[in-house]
Amino acid sequence: MSKNYCVAVAGATGAVGVEMVKTLEKRNFPVGKLKLLASARSAGKCVKFHGENVVIEEMTKESFKGVDIALFSAGGDISREYRDAVVSSGAVMIDNSSAFRLDPGVPLVVPEVNPEDVALHRGVIANPNCTTAIMLVAVAPLHRAKGVKRMVVSTYQAASGAGAKGMQELIDQTRQVLDGREISPKAFAHRIAFNLIPHIDSFTDNGYTKEELKMLNEARKMLHLPELLLSCTSVRIPALRAHSEALNIEFEREITPDEARAILAKAPGVTLADDPANNVYPMPVDATEKYDVLVGRIRQDISRNDRRGLDLFVSGDQLLKGAALNAVQIAELL
Amino acid sequence: MSKNYCVAVAGATGAVGVEMVKTLEKRNFPVGKLKLLASARSAGKCVKFHGENVVIEEMTKESFKGVDIALFSAGGDISREYRDAVVSSGAVMIDNSSAFRLDPGVPLVVPEVNPEDVALHRGVIANPNCTTAIMLVAVAPLHRAKGVKRMVVSTYQAASGAGAKGMQELIDQTRQVLDGREISPKAFAHRIAFNLIPHIDSFTDNGYTKEELKMLNEARKMLHLPELLLSCTSVRIPALRAHSEALNIEFEREITPDEARAILAKAPGVTLADDPANNVYPMPVDATEKYDVLVGRIRQDISRNDRRGLDLFVSGDQLLKGAALNAVQIAELL
Repeated sequence: MSKNYCVAVAGATGAVGVEMVKTLEKRNFPVGKLKLLASARSAGKCVKFHGENVVIEEMTKESFKGVDIALFSAGGDISREYRDAVVSSGAVMIDNSSAFRLDPGVPLVVPEVNPEDVALHRGVIANPNCTTAIMLVAVAPLHRAKGVKRMVVSTYQAASGAGAKGMQELIDQTRQVLDGREISPKAFAHRIAFNLIPHIDSFTDNGYTKEELKMLNEARKMLHLPELLLSCTSVRIPALRAHSEALNIEFEREITPDEARAILAKAPGVTLADDPANNVYPMPVDATEKYDVLVGRIRQDISRNDRRGLDLFVSGDQLLKGAALNAVQIAELL
Repeated sequence: MSKNYCVAVAGATGAVGVEMVKTLEKRNFPVGKLKLLASARSAGKCVKFHGENVVIEEMTKESFKGVDIALFSAGGDISREYRDAVVSSGAVMIDNSSAFRLDPGVPLVVPEVNPEDVALHRGVIANPNCTTAIMLVAVAPLHRAKGVKRMVVSTYQAASGAGAKGMQELIDQTRQVLDGREISPKAFAHRIAFNLIPHIDSFTDNGYTKEELKMLNEARKMLHLPELLLSCTSVRIPALRAHSEALNIEFEREITPDEARAILAKAPGVTLADDPANNVYPMPVDATEKYDVLVGRIRQDISRNDRRGLDLFVSGDQLLKGAALNAVQIAELL
């Protein structure tokens, strides 16, 4: 890559936006000019990038002139509002919100899963739901080898999924509970300290939450597998920033744990953490600030009378692989 | 019940033992004499029972003379060591350890699930694994109506599963992490504060932990269903004392969420917590210190093309329904 790009980060002060800037720096993305965009409230603040101060600007529809790549993480409403301005300015929008993910004209991409879909973009590429991205980094290579048919998933999602305010609420509220003080939940529907909440995003008519249905619908789109069957229970737990998931997977063809380990050992974006004898398995504290998704607890599903089932456990940094890293990886593909 | 019983609690200073004494008091169990037994280290300490001080005695093989019911929660080794002394003294041992659970001569009982099995005892009745007991309070009534065939379970288990020292470690370690101090895990294999650990009890050759296999083997025994299929992933999370579980259940016959709710609304030991529109669903903080198991998030499994699947979420107090309450309920059946 010899060219240097003008890159905009929209939502630069959010938990994901902050990680986007760090990831552009750490991966030495060829940034010619960096534009940091946020609401008027944050304009004027400074952020360090490769040792230099970049001043945050208020985002307007004129902000995208000369921009090559616009990384958006400011919520679905903002993405919808700015889409036309970004695309008509000639920039490619890489959007972390759920606004366009299921739009048939918008590729939904995890570079380890379906990099080829990037080529189909018409100005917008969507970044998947963080929990789906983390799951598919582990599942896609197994699917390519043995064909995934049905999955039962339970998630253990960190406070960072509700942004910087979610992490801060967990920290502050935990101190309040330890000190026996009153708490007043804001970022979450209930107390999260020393608790869990089986409710992420809003409920739909069939009793599943939107978050749970994203796992099904986004996985179908990215795996190009419209007949995939998947049931998910999404649960918020008091961890800070890495999401974990228990995956029960039924395959079209037989697969053993050893075969799965051999496939995953070579899979991009995966680090095997599967040595139970030495107490090695995926955990949020180990996945935090790592680019790779940790995969372990790989075993033959004993609830089946054949060898077409596997159970495994994954942990991935929700802000990185689940969001900022994935967006920057998409930009690298461009 | 006109007779008053001599009841011994072995392991009276442990997390479960303390709850056993409280539960005997709260449920007005007809205790004529209460003997509190523990190791020499705890002997001489006093515990209040119905307003009177009971002095803890050092447990010896002679402690059980005149005892009618001996509630044991002092670990499997102690239970094995004292079994003969208890039984030959004429007392019935209600054992909370895993020592005799799968012994064909020992009934394994949850009163809401298989009360009839109590009658088969020959001096020892086993209390199941706490997570299994909580699961079966919800599953048994559905099984009786529609026949359970296969389950995929993911657990969210509280620190109390590792006893009083587990809860204390979670509290102390959380403060240490918040203050940026060094931590040194003892009760758990790794840091538990703001983390999770997908490892409870020891690993077996097939990659499952003993805890995960207890869910299968104890459920088969208590449901009298040797062909039950079940795969479990057991995970420790930083909650204090109630365990939660995501259950994906395949039935022999069709069942709708409304049918399940109607069955569970009448089921003993169950409180429905299933009103998503008002953010009501099972959570550890709500299950704590409750006798009932909370059941909610009931929905038709969308990963199946028929109506033979349900997903649901449960929370139950691990020290009460999972241990102390269940033991006292067994004593009540006697």
